Amino acid sequence: MIIDDAERAKLSSRMTFAVRFCETDLMGIVHHSNYLCYFEAGRVDWLHRRGISYEYWVKRGIHLPVVDAHVRYRKAARFDEVLEVVTTCIELSRVTVKFGYALNRVSDGVRLCEGETLLACVGPELAPKRFPEDIAAVFRSAEIDAPAGST
Amino acid sequence: MIIDDAERAKLSSRMTFAVRFCETDLMGIVHHSNYLCYFEAGRVDWLHRRGISYEYWVKRGIHLPVVDAHVRYRKAARFDEVLEVVTTCIELSRVTVKFGYALNRVSDGVRLCEGETLLACVGPELAPKRFPEDIAAVFRSAEIDAPAGST
Amino acid sequence: MIIDDAERAKLSSRMTFAVRFCETDLMGIVHHSNYLCYFEAGRVDWLHRRGISYEYWVKRGIHLPVVDAHVRYRKAARFDEVLEVVTTCIELSRVTVKFGYALNRVSDGVRLCEGETLLACVGPELAPKRFPEDIAAVFRSAEIDAPAGST
Amino acid sequence: MIIDDAERAKLSSRMTFAVRFCETDLMGIVHHSNYLCYFEAGRVDWLHRRGISYEYWVKRGIHLPVVDAHVRYRKAARFDEVLEVVTTCIELSRVTVKFGYALNRVSDGVRLCEGETLLACVGPELAPKRFPEDIAAVFRSAEIDAPAGST
Repeated sequence: MIIDDAERAKLSSRMTFAVRFCETDLMGIVHHSNYLCYFEAGRVDWLHRRGISYEYWVKRGIHLPVVDAHVRYRKAARFDEVLEVVTTCIELSRVTVKFGYALNRVSDGVRLCEGETLLACVGPELAPKRFPEDIAAVFRSAEIDAPAGST
Repeated sequence: MIIDDAERAKLSSRMTFAVRFCETDLMGIVHHSNYLCYFEAGRVDWLHRRGISYEYWVKRGIHLPVVDAHVRYRKAARFDEVLEVVTTCIELSRVTVKFGYALNRVSDGVRLCEGETLLACVGPELAPKRFPEDIAAVFRSAEIDAPAGST
Repeated sequence: MIIDDAERAKLSSRMTFAVRFCETDLMGIVHHSNYLCYFEAGRVDWLHRRGISYEYWVKRGIHLPVVDAHVRYRKAARFDEVLEVVTTCIELSRVTVKFGYALNRVSDGVRLCEGETLLACVGPELAPKRFPEDIAAVFRSAEIDAPAGST
Repeated sequence: MIIDDAERAKLSSRMTFAVRFCETDLMGIVHHSNYLCYFEAGRVDWLHRRGISYEYWVKRGIHLPVVDAHVRYRKAARFDEVLEVVTTCIELSRVTVKFGYALNRVSDGVRLCEGETLLACVGPELAPKRFPEDIAAVFRSAEIDAPAGST
């Protein structure tokens, strides 16, 4: 399933957070590996906003390891800046789901970074498996608290 | 400058290291953000093998921030495994340099991960600048200890 | 200056945050090194609540490196739990400041961890120096938004 | 069991490693949380040198979570420096083991940091348990490759 633009708004969520000191490096900017952690935090929050705790899937023995990640760094994020990660489900197959991310600086709205991660559905021992139908449905759903007209 | 295959062997270096406990996550595997740190360690070592300390460039006011990163995760790395990162300079322009990486498990040679990072040359305040000629030359050079016939 | 109990309430602040996936390890719990990052985030927030951005001190050339850290882990924090860090300034000398931390799980109030960090005032090149008077004053101050009666 | 000085040499091991770029922070030095990871790496290596893979204990369902950590930072470690961690088993009870660490800069032997971590023996679900006898014996043993006279 390729997700078209009309669906995208429904499948996007926003989360804000502040850059931690420990995330900087000696260039004085956020170390580039941390953006993958920011994306991940956005993804976990995306699920929360759809009523899902990723931890619950883990307890059912389902994990979603990242199998491909692409990050385009445009401007450096810095210590203590408040950032917004916009997470969007952009592609869904029977065994994988792709999320896109845009990272913006909240103070002036400047886009700092963009990226995508592809996640695969695996069971115990990391063996690939199809998404259970209830999980696939989550990836096509809007935030549960969103007002009806917003989709 | 696109670097052809004949040049690649000369522009590759290998480094081994062991996965640390703190690099794992609750899936019991290495957290995917750490591979960017492994690539970076491979890159620093690649420079060392060409007589360069990245720290020396930093002191000259030259940084090489990562502006694009792509990682393809094939198999999970696990705690305490000894891994080999093969780092190759694969593309050089006047203002950017691209490195490719292959991550193998040493015990059985299995390929765990591949990726590329694109780095830009910047001066103080992160302003883009051309590579100084001596730095560009490093990216086209073989390991300084390599036997003469190996290039 | 040893800070007595009566002063403590005034010199405490609370911040909540959620445990990130990348902060867990293969034991399925938060890796113990991350608690120092949680304490640090609490400390940065403590300053914010007193009108101070640590970044501003950094720009003045003043850093506060941690010179001693002690952490007592009571119960494990887990992925996605919402935690509260209570940060308190507990001791102030001319050249050092000590903060104490209590980390609680918000859902049930259980204490997970306690600790202290001692920070030294240093200038450029990490040379020790006395706290400027305005900075020392911050460490003795209450939150700027706190209602008058609360101190 | 308190371990006396005569026993200490036998119960110490050394490991060297280079500081990674990602371990630095905007002060230009190693972020203080990383020292706990260095200590941990030293501990894992200490076990290796006694024929033990910590992973093997994990597979038996035995974990050794850190329950107390103390770190005294003397001088800053910096990017790319080669460091040596000297790990020593300094105390053993039926349910806990304490390791001490000294971190030295290899180029000039300067002591950068010291610390201790106390680890508890736990089984599945993190329930405390006594050390199995074979594990307690490891904590009292010398490196297996050490020459006979060195103990």
